[in-house]
Amino acid sequence: MNVGGQSLEFILVKFPSLELSESLLRNSLKRREFVTVAGNCECRYTGRASSHLGWGERLILIKGDGSIQVHRPKGYEPVNWQPPQCNFYVHRSGGLLFIEAHRRRPRESLTLNFDRIIFYSSFKPVDNAEFNLYVSEEQMRDALIRDPSILEDGLELVDFERKVEPGFIDFYGRDADGRLVIVELKRSQAGKEAILQLKRYVDAVLKITGQNVRGVLAAPRLKSGAQGLLVELGLEFRRLTPRKCAEVLKKSGTRKISEFI
Amino acid sequence: MNVGGQSLEFILVKFPSLELSESLLRNSLKRREFVTVAGNCECRYTGRASSHLGWGERLILIKGDGSIQVHRPKGYEPVNWQPPQCNFYVHRSGGLLFIEAHRRRPRESLTLNFDRIIFYSSFKPVDNAEFNLYVSEEQMRDALIRDPSILEDGLELVDFERKVEPGFIDFYGRDADGRLVIVELKRSQAGKEAILQLKRYVDAVLKITGQNVRGVLAAPRLKSGAQGLLVELGLEFRRLTPRKCAEVLKKSGTRKISEFI
Repeated sequence: MNVGGQSLEFILVKFPSLELSESLLRNSLKRREFVTVAGNCECRYTGRASSHLGWGERLILIKGDGSIQVHRPKGYEPVNWQPPQCNFYVHRSGGLLFIEAHRRRPRESLTLNFDRIIFYSSFKPVDNAEFNLYVSEEQMRDALIRDPSILEDGLELVDFERKVEPGFIDFYGRDADGRLVIVELKRSQAGKEAILQLKRYVDAVLKITGQNVRGVLAAPRLKSGAQGLLVELGLEFRRLTPRKCAEVLKKSGTRKISEFI
Repeated sequence: MNVGGQSLEFILVKFPSLELSESLLRNSLKRREFVTVAGNCECRYTGRASSHLGWGERLILIKGDGSIQVHRPKGYEPVNWQPPQCNFYVHRSGGLLFIEAHRRRPRESLTLNFDRIIFYSSFKPVDNAEFNLYVSEEQMRDALIRDPSILEDGLELVDFERKVEPGFIDFYGRDADGRLVIVELKRSQAGKEAILQLKRYVDAVLKITGQNVRGVLAAPRLKSGAQGLLVELGLEFRRLTPRKCAEVLKKSGTRKISEFI
């Protein structure tokens, strides 16, 4: 029960028997609680591939949305996991406790068998906060330089911050068909002003190169009513979110932009 | 202390005060234990981007390798995380408990402040098991069809299981420079037999098309002593692991191969 944003009821048991753990798990899964189980287990996965992990002490998280993850003592990624909406089956057999997580599409299953539970906890966290991620236009540009495919497959960098008469082009590239592409980046919703700016760049590059140029506006979203102008001017919109950019920046770690150009 | 693969000592506390939590955390971090903390917290990240997550009840995992992750009640991915080898700072101020995780390269930091801890647990899991992932050659081929870039940037599928005189070519594609590429897949280490088979395919395609063809052997590893023959025959080796293939297969979910060709 949650009152005033505070979990008043939760379960925390040290060294529960497998029998008790089975009954706790059944109840928690029914109530869609957030379960944390530490124990000695063996893991098997079958589906698009198959895997086996021998016995060891691990921490298992099962969330109310039906996702599950198995954490080893090292690494920030789970060794096995299943996304939300799994069907769970809990049973005991031959002195072991089994947790099975099944999915239908694709058909895959993760089975954990425990011979010992170190601790069991379950609660219903109250968490309605908004997650806000901020990425500057410069950081968006860096992400796009590091991985142009976040905008479209086959896109490649030619130059960035290229000076043309009306100003600086954020990203200047070539698409999979060899056509020139100009990208104008906006960190929040893009409107008519950004579209007109992009159009000026496209015209300037057309004038200089004599080549047909694609103009792409990349932003988390387009302002309502701006779509008409975009189409009218023969320009394109591609959704590019701060989260996607942040992922690329995080993954690329410490590599410098100079390594990419 | 771990004896005979069994954690005999571990800490499990319900509703610890912030003062007690601070001292428990300091000790656990010093001992490089696996810490699980559930509590009401606010999260801030600054680094390659910045983010803010308002107050809510979450589960935090800190592993002995210095990685940290913040889990909300839903989703299999943490909302915030830092990889191994963070430096941690724990302190109390203004009635709150702060956990800071810092990295130098890239410079980034994750700060969590708690006003209440629901439970605290720490232990030193014993887990030396090997993780074995099995992917069939057919599954490797499917992964490569779904995402040829796992082998090299710019690689594109032309055909798969293409019949030529000596047999069936696993993957037949075109590289970023427009050259034909033949890929021979092996699910475990590849030796001289696989190299000679690939050479027969390359010769057959050269004979049919009159075009220069790249022959690529893709496997988790090359048998010792096979490198010489490979180079001698003008062929290439690309490392392709079961894990990489399994990731692609998992991500692509239920999409059929027919959607990719």
